[in-house]
Amino acid sequence: MKAVVILSGGLDSTTCMGIAQKDGYQLYPLTFDYGQRHRIELEAAAAVAAHYHVSDQHQIASLDWLGVLGGSALTDQTMDVPSAGEEKGIPSTYVPARNLIFISLATAYAEVVGATAIYLGVSAVDFSGYPDCRPAFIEAVNQTLALATEVGVNDQKESIQVVTPLIHLSKKETIRQGIELEVPYHLTTSCYRGEAKACGKCDSCHLRLKGFAENGVRDPIPYHDSVSVNV
Amino acid sequence: MKAVVILSGGLDSTTCMGIAQKDGYQLYPLTFDYGQRHRIELEAAAAVAAHYHVSDQHQIASLDWLGVLGGSALTDQTMDVPSAGEEKGIPSTYVPARNLIFISLATAYAEVVGATAIYLGVSAVDFSGYPDCRPAFIEAVNQTLALATEVGVNDQKESIQVVTPLIHLSKKETIRQGIELEVPYHLTTSCYRGEAKACGKCDSCHLRLKGFAENGVRDPIPYHDSVSVNV
Repeated sequence: MKAVVILSGGLDSTTCMGIAQKDGYQLYPLTFDYGQRHRIELEAAAAVAAHYHVSDQHQIASLDWLGVLGGSALTDQTMDVPSAGEEKGIPSTYVPARNLIFISLATAYAEVVGATAIYLGVSAVDFSGYPDCRPAFIEAVNQTLALATEVGVNDQKESIQVVTPLIHLSKKETIRQGIELEVPYHLTTSCYRGEAKACGKCDSCHLRLKGFAENGVRDPIPYHDSVSVNV
Repeated sequence: MKAVVILSGGLDSTTCMGIAQKDGYQLYPLTFDYGQRHRIELEAAAAVAAHYHVSDQHQIASLDWLGVLGGSALTDQTMDVPSAGEEKGIPSTYVPARNLIFISLATAYAEVVGATAIYLGVSAVDFSGYPDCRPAFIEAVNQTLALATEVGVNDQKESIQVVTPLIHLSKKETIRQGIELEVPYHLTTSCYRGEAKACGKCDSCHLRLKGFAENGVRDPIPYHDSVSVNV
């Protein structure tokens, strides 16, 4: 059994690597380079793939055009990254149709290697306004994939399906599961600002620090000196 | 009203330009460069956009990674293009998940420019084994988009929807409609082999020549001398 794992180098997608491995899949990590400001994500993803001994199966898909298109604070260098709680509704860090784009390209990779699962680390619990992290969205995508895909597995035809093991988990629960699976969190990066040391202030840092604190575990990545990571 | 038109430079997508214009939309053509063998398509798409005076709105999205990934005779230089009727089932010219990838990137463009429609020139009538040209696939995609997208139009929120005006048309009917709308078929290209003169032998040439002949109209593009285009 083979699974494409959409791997950003962040905490959630890296946890999906551990879960897909536990579920018995050979791992085919897929990372997107869409002109995001934090190039450090690509290095983290490569380190995670190496940790799981699947560097040869690790694909990096360039989506420079999304950066050209703009429309998001995560790809548009002229927009400010907001601090936690500053925004209402769909946040400016939303990349248009991002998960749909990621899933569609992962489907191409899955068809080529004969994978039947695409692991995607979305969560509807810590969901902060992204419409494409909802369970109903994933269900609709899977109905679409059931109609559009066929992969041969042991003389049978199976459709490709998106698997979202974190969708009903809080960050606390995700990290607890990751710790049990010895997920290499020290290799991951989450900060929206994407510097060598995490800012500790953006939405993403805030959720991550809280999740580790709630598990009574120290987050192993470096933070700016002013941030408290004590548990 | 704005519409993204997925424009390959072929006959069907160019007909969609004419139909979207007739439907009252401002046109935002989107062309994909995915390492296809026929670069001539990109030139045709640019000529069609210029014909409709929307060169400034014409985006070319690079998807080089799909070419790297391979898996199709249309992107893989080592695979032969089959002649008409040579294959059964899903043809080797199928690009994995292609329409899903095209739609997902068109969705990003639509969100950025505030378009509510994505015109896609698929047909289920001349459908030659591509699973992602079926009406059920398009319906499932539209359910997905209804859950994932919101575009502000005159103080209202609308979701983006895929429009497939050719889905129940034969090639003959598509061409008849295009002729009525003065679609610039002389600028289009359809041949899978992608040379300056069309081969007249591949599935795509075969369907196109038949469609013009059934309308009693001569196809205006050049063919190899050995091909009969008389009507």
